[in-house]
Amino acid sequence: MNAEIINVGTELLVGSIVNTNARFIAEALADYAIDTYHQVTVGDNPKRIALALQAAFDRADLVVVTGGLGPTEDDITLNAVSFFSGLHLLYHKPTAAHIRSYLKSRSLTPSTSINRQCMLPKGAIVFENALGTAPGLLVPMPSDKTKQWLIVLPGPPRELEPLLRDKILPEFFRVSGLSREYFIRRSIRMIGLSEPVVASKVKKYLEAEPPLTLGIYTRFGEVELKIMAKSPVRENAVAMADKLEAIIRKKFGSAIYTVGNDPIAAVIGNLLREKKWTLAVAESCTGGLLTSQLTDIPGSSEYFVGGVVAYDNRVKISALGVKPALIEQRGAVSPEVAEAMAEGIRARFHSDIGIAITGIAGPDGGSKQKPVGLVYIALSINKKTFVEKNLFFGRRTDIKHRAALKAMDILRLHLLASGPSPKSDKKTA
Amino acid sequence: MNAEIINVGTELLVGSIVNTNARFIAEALADYAIDTYHQVTVGDNPKRIALALQAAFDRADLVVVTGGLGPTEDDITLNAVSFFSGLHLLYHKPTAAHIRSYLKSRSLTPSTSINRQCMLPKGAIVFENALGTAPGLLVPMPSDKTKQWLIVLPGPPRELEPLLRDKILPEFFRVSGLSREYFIRRSIRMIGLSEPVVASKVKKYLEAEPPLTLGIYTRFGEVELKIMAKSPVRENAVAMADKLEAIIRKKFGSAIYTVGNDPIAAVIGNLLREKKWTLAVAESCTGGLLTSQLTDIPGSSEYFVGGVVAYDNRVKISALGVKPALIEQRGAVSPEVAEAMAEGIRARFHSDIGIAITGIAGPDGGSKQKPVGLVYIALSINKKTFVEKNLFFGRRTDIKHRAALKAMDILRLHLLASGPSPKSDKKTA
Repeated sequence: MNAEIINVGTELLVGSIVNTNARFIAEALADYAIDTYHQVTVGDNPKRIALALQAAFDRADLVVVTGGLGPTEDDITLNAVSFFSGLHLLYHKPTAAHIRSYLKSRSLTPSTSINRQCMLPKGAIVFENALGTAPGLLVPMPSDKTKQWLIVLPGPPRELEPLLRDKILPEFFRVSGLSREYFIRRSIRMIGLSEPVVASKVKKYLEAEPPLTLGIYTRFGEVELKIMAKSPVRENAVAMADKLEAIIRKKFGSAIYTVGNDPIAAVIGNLLREKKWTLAVAESCTGGLLTSQLTDIPGSSEYFVGGVVAYDNRVKISALGVKPALIEQRGAVSPEVAEAMAEGIRARFHSDIGIAITGIAGPDGGSKQKPVGLVYIALSINKKTFVEKNLFFGRRTDIKHRAALKAMDILRLHLLASGPSPKSDKKTA
Repeated sequence: MNAEIINVGTELLVGSIVNTNARFIAEALADYAIDTYHQVTVGDNPKRIALALQAAFDRADLVVVTGGLGPTEDDITLNAVSFFSGLHLLYHKPTAAHIRSYLKSRSLTPSTSINRQCMLPKGAIVFENALGTAPGLLVPMPSDKTKQWLIVLPGPPRELEPLLRDKILPEFFRVSGLSREYFIRRSIRMIGLSEPVVASKVKKYLEAEPPLTLGIYTRFGEVELKIMAKSPVRENAVAMADKLEAIIRKKFGSAIYTVGNDPIAAVIGNLLREKKWTLAVAESCTGGLLTSQLTDIPGSSEYFVGGVVAYDNRVKISALGVKPALIEQRGAVSPEVAEAMAEGIRARFHSDIGIAITGIAGPDGGSKQKPVGLVYIALSINKKTFVEKNLFFGRRTDIKHRAALKAMDILRLHLLASGPSPKSDKKTA
């Protein structure tokens, strides 16, 4: 069983937008162990769409087409499907009713052009689009020899994704009677280790062949190990993945911050909530990025008290209580000032934990002794304060990002080693 | 003249990564008015790469291939090129020397496998890769009828982008003797207007045909109008774009925050620097996002003093001086509290301007009177304080993003209407 993806959209061909749909569709198909050998992008041109369908059905069992389903004259994907397959387009009443009620709920007036979106290929199984007007379609292709299938999806990612993953693919396996394979993918994530260091410890598994393989990816100071296990029996795929996960966990221990897709801010949030600690943050060079990432997590107000972005040294003094003499003697980017900032925010914001970051994000402001990328991270917890020196590379925004990640990882390791907050009883009272 | 893009990489087919290269290449080609009708992605499979080359050269004058140039056995793009074109691969000494010195400068040991990266198709023009090992190539294809060209690029975006844009495309037009066309693209950006409202004012231009067209795009609370002007004479393309830009500027006036690609934080930064105003920020629901975006701009420490993220109400009271009675009577999400936060941060941080944001980012915490997405933005400037009520839609992170954007746009409009800071003389003293 193999699939091909056709993306329709002139905006993709001129480079106006990045094609995130191709990635999502490929990943969703891979979850069902459906191989994809080709992805193709063509413009809103009926002839080229029809030729792309022809080429795709010459080599694939399942073709997924996305885009070009809108109400305007440019949207001609279904005309091309009809031309290529010989399936007539028929007016589909339930779709018309859905579009009218969808537009009405948003106080929009339906135009006559919505009729175009109701003309669907004969024999198509129609999936109502809860988040838009154009439906998703599963079309059995008329063919003499082997059974082939077409999936048609609207272009906007937020409409496409639930339609394909939650509705069309499960239904496809039901109506086609095909037995699916299972492809378990599991991401193991670490911060602060380099790719070669991680790779050297799992070399053997990185070279393994299917059904059980391991990939390594790196991005912005994170390393991801990706377990991929394939089997016709779900339990077998899971068992293979479990076994390799256990081996990797043993090798890397607490360096792993999550197995899955939780951002580290969510992992920290769970630890803080569980152990009933509260947190406040003092940032200089990261300029609010750490605080923003922490507060991206729903419910973070339970454990996150607040933060100070102390860009100007006078704010370090007035809002965090850092001594002016300390800044003068050691400089704003120094372990001593990081320490004072962490202790200051904890005291002033009455939190259990204070974190502080001070450094040089660049591109200017570096020196030989204190180069761009030098960042001190301090953690004040249980009457103790720890400081760590870091040297990050990259552009200004990369350095901010890496520093915020590292600060969260330092906090995570301290939380793992700590019990519940000593104040936690008192606070419930 | 038309081009086709072939992306080689199994990681793209399984959906492990998003294909940002296709977008970059398409845009770079479009800048030279080279049309792209097809983008294709195939895995690291020699037969499928060769077939993709065959299909591409059947319909395009220029084919751009990226990926599969690494040192491992999986990297077989050049073997497929050789197989398809009949061009032998020859050992290229300068590339070998470059790879050795590149690896040495990074304290890496060259392995024997680097030899694979030095085997290049006969007749290729070789472009050294300053940021990696695999070179970029411009290959005149052996052909009886018409002249066709192949460009080969390494896969990592930071290596590919400067090679294509700065080296290979200019050289392509030089050696091919083709006369290039010019494609001027210009983005006009606005915040806080809806797409239909903007579209209705420029309907005529949105329907225009080449050589002068206008596109409209929307994303996260911003609307972008994109002027595209094409001509064999650069001055003519610029003149067409200038004329349409003037028309659009007249229609939207100060609602336009930039023509170009500057983020609004940079636009504000320039205004603050120019008028010698300083800024401090108090955030509740945006949780540091506004501060982080402001400090993404190099040199922001010149005008940005600092910020407070007041998640807990006690922080609003202690760090910003908001009266407890006010929070009790009006609620933390109220125009009165927004006002007090803006005035508080300005007074405490001794800045010329204070901005405050308080709202409900969700997904929980909303009510009938104060729904998720309700956000008050206050601006304290010149002894006056202004408050604006907003209702944003979307997920928690969308609401944060839209609120931060809107706050920056409010600040921008106030700065446009203001003269230099009254304190600016004093401060220089």
